[in-house]
Amino acid sequence: MLSDIEIAQSVTPEHISAIAERAGVPEKYLEMYGSYKAKVDYNLLLDEKHEPGKLILVTAINPTPAGEGKTTTTVGLADGMRKIGKNVVVALREPSLGPVFGIKGGAAGGGWAQVVPMEDINLHFTGDFHAIGAANNLLAAMIDNHIHQGNELGFDVRKITWKRAVDMNDRQLRNIVCGMGGKAHGVPREDGFDITVASEIMAIFCLATSITDLKERLARIVVGYTRDDQPITAGQLNAEGAMTALLKDALKPNLVQTLEGTPAFVHGGPFANIAHGCNSIMATRMAMALGDYCITEAGFGADLGAEKFLDIKCRLADLKPDAVVVVATVRALKNHGGVAKADLNEENLEALEAGLPNLLQHVENITKVYKLPCVVAINAFPTDTKAELDLVEAKCKELGVNVALSEVWAKGGEGGMALAEEVVRLCEEPNDFSFAYEDDLSIAEKIKVIAQRVYHADGVDFTPAAKKEIAQLEALGFAHMPVCMAKTQYSFSDDQTKLGAPRGFRITVRKAKVSAGAGFIVALTGDIMTMPGLPKRPAAERIDVDETGKISGLF
Amino acid sequence: MLSDIEIAQSVTPEHISAIAERAGVPEKYLEMYGSYKAKVDYNLLLDEKHEPGKLILVTAINPTPAGEGKTTTTVGLADGMRKIGKNVVVALREPSLGPVFGIKGGAAGGGWAQVVPMEDINLHFTGDFHAIGAANNLLAAMIDNHIHQGNELGFDVRKITWKRAVDMNDRQLRNIVCGMGGKAHGVPREDGFDITVASEIMAIFCLATSITDLKERLARIVVGYTRDDQPITAGQLNAEGAMTALLKDALKPNLVQTLEGTPAFVHGGPFANIAHGCNSIMATRMAMALGDYCITEAGFGADLGAEKFLDIKCRLADLKPDAVVVVATVRALKNHGGVAKADLNEENLEALEAGLPNLLQHVENITKVYKLPCVVAINAFPTDTKAELDLVEAKCKELGVNVALSEVWAKGGEGGMALAEEVVRLCEEPNDFSFAYEDDLSIAEKIKVIAQRVYHADGVDFTPAAKKEIAQLEALGFAHMPVCMAKTQYSFSDDQTKLGAPRGFRITVRKAKVSAGAGFIVALTGDIMTMPGLPKRPAAERIDVDETGKISGLF
Repeated sequence: MLSDIEIAQSVTPEHISAIAERAGVPEKYLEMYGSYKAKVDYNLLLDEKHEPGKLILVTAINPTPAGEGKTTTTVGLADGMRKIGKNVVVALREPSLGPVFGIKGGAAGGGWAQVVPMEDINLHFTGDFHAIGAANNLLAAMIDNHIHQGNELGFDVRKITWKRAVDMNDRQLRNIVCGMGGKAHGVPREDGFDITVASEIMAIFCLATSITDLKERLARIVVGYTRDDQPITAGQLNAEGAMTALLKDALKPNLVQTLEGTPAFVHGGPFANIAHGCNSIMATRMAMALGDYCITEAGFGADLGAEKFLDIKCRLADLKPDAVVVVATVRALKNHGGVAKADLNEENLEALEAGLPNLLQHVENITKVYKLPCVVAINAFPTDTKAELDLVEAKCKELGVNVALSEVWAKGGEGGMALAEEVVRLCEEPNDFSFAYEDDLSIAEKIKVIAQRVYHADGVDFTPAAKKEIAQLEALGFAHMPVCMAKTQYSFSDDQTKLGAPRGFRITVRKAKVSAGAGFIVALTGDIMTMPGLPKRPAAERIDVDETGKISGLF
Repeated sequence: MLSDIEIAQSVTPEHISAIAERAGVPEKYLEMYGSYKAKVDYNLLLDEKHEPGKLILVTAINPTPAGEGKTTTTVGLADGMRKIGKNVVVALREPSLGPVFGIKGGAAGGGWAQVVPMEDINLHFTGDFHAIGAANNLLAAMIDNHIHQGNELGFDVRKITWKRAVDMNDRQLRNIVCGMGGKAHGVPREDGFDITVASEIMAIFCLATSITDLKERLARIVVGYTRDDQPITAGQLNAEGAMTALLKDALKPNLVQTLEGTPAFVHGGPFANIAHGCNSIMATRMAMALGDYCITEAGFGADLGAEKFLDIKCRLADLKPDAVVVVATVRALKNHGGVAKADLNEENLEALEAGLPNLLQHVENITKVYKLPCVVAINAFPTDTKAELDLVEAKCKELGVNVALSEVWAKGGEGGMALAEEVVRLCEEPNDFSFAYEDDLSIAEKIKVIAQRVYHADGVDFTPAAKKEIAQLEALGFAHMPVCMAKTQYSFSDDQTKLGAPRGFRITVRKAKVSAGAGFIVALTGDIMTMPGLPKRPAAERIDVDETGKISGLF
């Protein structure tokens, strides 16, 4: 069996100018990065009027070790749409460089449903994440330089909230003491590094609607507090102009292609816990402007990914989705039903039935809370039995939702045509898209609504620290912002061992902070790791390049 | 008067494909990065036989606050060569991102002798430095992960020589303690960050002659020592393949253009003290393959820059230069003669005569030590008087060297035609290029030869620490390597206040270490700052971008 990188390298991609032509991008907006990647100038959106296409979100059940294949389904669905004659453009997140050297491998789809050039997409690509890291670290340097030069703004060095960033899995940098070595070398304080994708700059970058909006958001970043708890912003350090200069090219969406030549924007990739986990608004808008259908995805399961896509991204960007695809695998559902990973190849209708509520609850959230048309995509595995597939279909039917078998991993777009037909049908249905909560609720009330309506928790407990932080954020005028929940992705609850569709649990909020530039409050239900580590045998040890520059061992 | 960025933005550059055609780069080797930048595939050098062109080095007197204009002269000389009908290609270093936000501003020439697009060249350009930073930090993460996971190789955590890197002026990161926070978060130790250009990866990158050579050099990097002082290399961590994967695209030289459309490779930029301070060998070789003349430069004054270009780069890359240009200004020479910066506008023949020995000694080193033809380029200022210029010319004539007035800052290539004519003449002269020292001398002897023949010191003192380190390096088998001197750039001596051509001084070597991947021994004569800081009012505060993406305040 071919590996993903072998499949990707077996296909000769079309020149990116042909893909741009297919997408309807006039040449003057195209900035090529070699033959297979290009940035598209955002002035395209300003200069030309476009009727926006339909917006389709691909989301999934809570992830399991069995794997669900959300990106694979997104890519294959788009290729399937094109096979049935539709004008479609994909919008995906960019993968982070760090995890490539850890365990995870790449993140550009799989099998015959990938975006290419996959080596580039998984390594530096067009440099966006490096630009975001540089902007993050310029701001950090300006904060510490300000303190070193006299601290006019009165930073309390114990309350600096801005961390440094590196796009690498480097646990050694999680907690550091910097500014050591005497008075010529800064002011000693505790500090730490996040992986670049966890930087607020990444979230801002993905929510910005123009250069000016980007700059204004950057200026609003709260980087720390004074001794009397007054926030200090990047704007007070006059940092936003130089940061924008570092980001101005990165903000242009990256155009690549699927293995079947469907245009795909791959742009931005914020964390799906402390941030909203969706590709950039610039890319989504551009895909909608160019395609009759834009297929996009959100991070993790629908409780985090779809919730944030709908309640944060759609709210802030004024987007209205037309249909939602919920991806599941029979294997993952059996895992939710209590079967260990090693035993997932056996038919097990009992376990499947026990795990199905996870899928059904996500589906119901989409149709009843958000009032959107929905289809379930079962990402097919050879071990799936007919009885298992029939059971999934029957249960979904009870909710009035159809199931489409997706065979895109093995067959590419041809394996996604059934799903494509159903998505096209759903997009013709009118919908009453609603948010889970409205802006004017208090921060605590918003959290409660998400916990009760989306997670189906009995209620929310706030630690004393969280209560104090929320009160402070409301006093500072941030109450109107949507809430970004940082919660385990493995369960509807905040306990990652509670699989399926748990009931009778409460959510504990332990901490709250503002991402004022991004424009949301982050509510943390536990310790969220914002800097991964490498495993005992890092994937980096296997990666190699031959004398012509060809990479091996990436996966 | 127009600023550099205003001049640069006032000229519409040619499309990079036209520049590539002018340089004779077949389209299949060209990878465009937008319309004005491209990478040229190194397979060009492997696939096609090229008769190498003449190699001209531009170097300078010891730098002063008055400024010399070495890059400006390099660019203007190339444009002048083209004006007199020569096929010429420039090879320059890439500027570092960090200093752009500090005081320095850009580094892409000045006035009407610049390489463009200057904003891009000074910001991310094609991402090379980010790739170098990522490779540096991957290695760092793999070192600490190795220790965290059990430390099989037996690192002494007090003797890790590999530092982390960021392309930012960030003094706060010079000295840190990392691995804090308990046993899940690494092993506490002292550490620090260098600016990316100070990374040994940068030096390796600039000395590599192919992907395979790059990978072998990376494997040889010494990252630390065991308790019994045995070196541990990147190769022992199996890091070289993944690092090469990160660098494979960066290794392709970047093609841009001068304001007059002369092809210019801008590629790589190592420090000129702890490293060798020249652009990549790949770029120099490619410029020589494509042009009948390749004009290149080296860092700082000729005591550091030309010495390393000749004794390290030419030795390791088997290059033989054809002519050397030594750049000076009348103002800088008066500064060497004792005049303060504020008084340099006044004619002062006495001070000029006192400062001239600095220039003359550099010239004599070129002609007598290295046995190369030499011309002095006086970078003209409006305040220069005829008497002053005549004095410089007369003194150089006594050494058998001609002086050409360079007016490229004000007039572009037209102002460089006289210099171009002299350079062409010199290239026809046969020369007996020699190194200052041979490989088989001991490390201490090599240092003595450089100090006595190039710096004109009476001798060298080694601190006890340096003696011990040199003995250790020789015991480990590194004695055959050339020596890279880390010394102040402001003086021939190791005392930056000794201007002109000092006599009766000794050089003190305080420390010695190996850059085993780069392939040289670094001898340090004092504390060398490998991580700059930001000034009280960083340039970053003035930089801005308008809504269309146009940058202002870069200089």
